[in-house]
Amino acid sequence: MAPSPVVLGIDIGGTTTSFAIVERDGKCLVQEVHPTRAEEPASRLVSRISERFREVFPPFSETYALTGVGIGAPNANYYTGIVEHPPNLNWGPSVNLAGLFRDAFALPVAVTNDANAAAIGEMEFGAARGMRHFIVITLGTGVGSGIVVNGEILYGADGFAGEIGHTVVDPQGRRCACGKRGCLEAYASAAGLCRTVMTLLADQMDDSELRRFSIRDLTARDVFEAASRGDEIARDAFRETGRILGMKLADAVAFTSPEAIFLFGGLAAAGELLFEPTRRSLEAHLLNIYRGKVRLLASGLRDGNAAVLGAAALIWRELETGASHHDSELSFIP
Amino acid sequence: MAPSPVVLGIDIGGTTTSFAIVERDGKCLVQEVHPTRAEEPASRLVSRISERFREVFPPFSETYALTGVGIGAPNANYYTGIVEHPPNLNWGPSVNLAGLFRDAFALPVAVTNDANAAAIGEMEFGAARGMRHFIVITLGTGVGSGIVVNGEILYGADGFAGEIGHTVVDPQGRRCACGKRGCLEAYASAAGLCRTVMTLLADQMDDSELRRFSIRDLTARDVFEAASRGDEIARDAFRETGRILGMKLADAVAFTSPEAIFLFGGLAAAGELLFEPTRRSLEAHLLNIYRGKVRLLASGLRDGNAAVLGAAALIWRELETGASHHDSELSFIP
Repeated sequence: MAPSPVVLGIDIGGTTTSFAIVERDGKCLVQEVHPTRAEEPASRLVSRISERFREVFPPFSETYALTGVGIGAPNANYYTGIVEHPPNLNWGPSVNLAGLFRDAFALPVAVTNDANAAAIGEMEFGAARGMRHFIVITLGTGVGSGIVVNGEILYGADGFAGEIGHTVVDPQGRRCACGKRGCLEAYASAAGLCRTVMTLLADQMDDSELRRFSIRDLTARDVFEAASRGDEIARDAFRETGRILGMKLADAVAFTSPEAIFLFGGLAAAGELLFEPTRRSLEAHLLNIYRGKVRLLASGLRDGNAAVLGAAALIWRELETGASHHDSELSFIP
Repeated sequence: MAPSPVVLGIDIGGTTTSFAIVERDGKCLVQEVHPTRAEEPASRLVSRISERFREVFPPFSETYALTGVGIGAPNANYYTGIVEHPPNLNWGPSVNLAGLFRDAFALPVAVTNDANAAAIGEMEFGAARGMRHFIVITLGTGVGSGIVVNGEILYGADGFAGEIGHTVVDPQGRRCACGKRGCLEAYASAAGLCRTVMTLLADQMDDSELRRFSIRDLTARDVFEAASRGDEIARDAFRETGRILGMKLADAVAFTSPEAIFLFGGLAAAGELLFEPTRRSLEAHLLNIYRGKVRLLASGLRDGNAAVLGAAALIWRELETGASHHDSELSFIP
C-alpha cells in the first residue's frame, strides 16, 4: 500500500517552537514543543528540528511519507520565505527561513508569520470554520495578528500585513523591542503585562504578592496565578491590558470589519481575566455601526495548536493548489 | 443608431454633493456640484438630484441612455444599500439610500461609502491603476478610508470596513461627532484642523491673522490661506494634523500593508503643507519592515473627481458583472 502523505507543521515563537507531523484532516502523529533559543541563529533551530524529525519519524515511515513543511514564524514573509527583523529572535536583519528548511528537508516549503498560521489553523480546523472575515490576535512573547478577508489571509503588497503589535497605543509611551515607542506589543504581550504590573506596583499603595518580584524575574504566569488568588494589583494589570488591547481591537474592526476576533497564545489562557476587560473596552471604543456585532472568542483548538496546525494547513493548501514557491519536489528520505 | 449607455455617478459629502453623467471610459457629459444640505432628510436630496438630472439630460437623450446610478455616501453599506448613522448628515439612524434612488430612477442602483467610491475611481481612472493594495483617505467634513486588497474594495463582514476616521488617536481626547472621544476625524477633518488652530491660539503667544476668527466662523480654507501667507499658527496646525494623521496611517499600513496611500478631499488640496508632515510622521511611526516602501500620493484625478467617477465606475462594474442588488431593470425614461 502506498504510504499516506503527511506534512510537518512548525510554529516558531519567541520562547518555544512546536512541531507536529500532521495528516490532511488535522490529526497529529507526533507533536512536540522545544525551546526556541532566541539567542541562537536560525540555522541552529532548523538543524535541531530536522534532527529531531529524523529521530521521531522512523516508526511511521512505512505507513506515511512526508510531503512538505509549513512554518509559522514571527515577521516571516509568505511571498519571499524570508524572516526580516524578527523583534524577539536574535536572527539578524534577514534570514531565508524557507531556504534553510528546503535545504534540510528537500521538500516543498511554505512560510508565513505565526499569527497568519494561527488564523489558517482556526479557519481549517478550529472555531473560524465557515467565517469569511475574522482576525486572530496572538498574545505571547510578541503580539501579532492574522487577518482574514473574504476567506483569505491578508498579505498586503509585500507579505507583511497584519502587524497589529506595532500599531501605536501612545506615541510617548513605552519603548518597544522594535525600536519604536508605545506599540501595542509593549503593553499586551507577556512582557507588557509584567511591565504594567511594575507600573501599578510603583503607582499604587496596595499590598500585593507581586511586590517580591524583580521585573527580570516576573512572568505572565506569576501575574496570572496572583490574579487567580485575588491579588488586586495582578487583576488591575489584566484590566489595564484589556483596556489597551480592546482599544486597538476597535481600530482593527474599523479597518477590516471582522465578524469575530480570536485571542490566542499565552496571555489568552488567562481567560475572562483578560477577555472581560478587553470585550468591555472593545465595545466602548467601537463606532456605533459595529457595536454588538463583533465576537471576541478563544481559539477553538487545544492550547497552542492553531498555529502548528495552521502551518501544516498552509503547506497542505500549497501542495493542493501547486502554489508553493518550492524549487524541489524530491520526496524526503529519512 | 442605438443610444450609448451612460451612468449617473453621485458623490454625497457632508457639505456638497457632486453628480456626473459618465461614459464607460470615465468621460463626463455633465458634472455639477450642489450643496448637500445636511439638515434635510435624504429623500429631499434624492428628489433634488433626480429633478436636476431631468433638467440637464434632455439635450443628450437622443444619443445616450441612462443605464444605472452609482452613489458614494458617508456610512453607506454596499451590501444593503442602507446608510446607517451618518455622523455629518441629519438623516437619522438608517436610510435606504439605494431604495430611494431606485424609486426615483427605476434603474439598477449601487451604493458604497464615499471613500470606497474614491478608491474605485482612483483604481479605474486615476493614479492607482494597476495597484493591487492601496488605501484612499478622504479628508473633508469627515475622515474616511477606502481600502483595496488584492484589487478589490475591502467591505468586511457587514459592508462597513474602512472607517479609519473613527479609530482612536487619544481615548481622553476631543469629542467626535460620532459620540466617541479622540477619533482621528476630530483631528484630521476640516473641522479638526480648525479645532487644532483654536487650541494652538490658546496655547501659544504668537500673533496670527487667525486670532480674529471665532471657532464657528473659521474654515479650513481660512487656515490654508493663512498658512500660504506664512502664518506660523496656521502652519503649525497643518504640522500637528499631519503628525496625527501620519501616526494613524502607520497603523493602517500595519494592518493592510498597502503600496500607496492617497490623500483625497478638501484638506488634501493643501498639498505639501499637509503631505510633508504627514509623510514624516508616517515614516517615523512605521515598523522597520515597512519603512521607505509606502508612497503617500495625491489623487491622480481632477479635484474631487475620484469619488464621483468611482461611484460611476461602481455601477458600471455591477452592470457588467450582473452583481447589482437591483430589483428593476427598466430603462430610464426622462
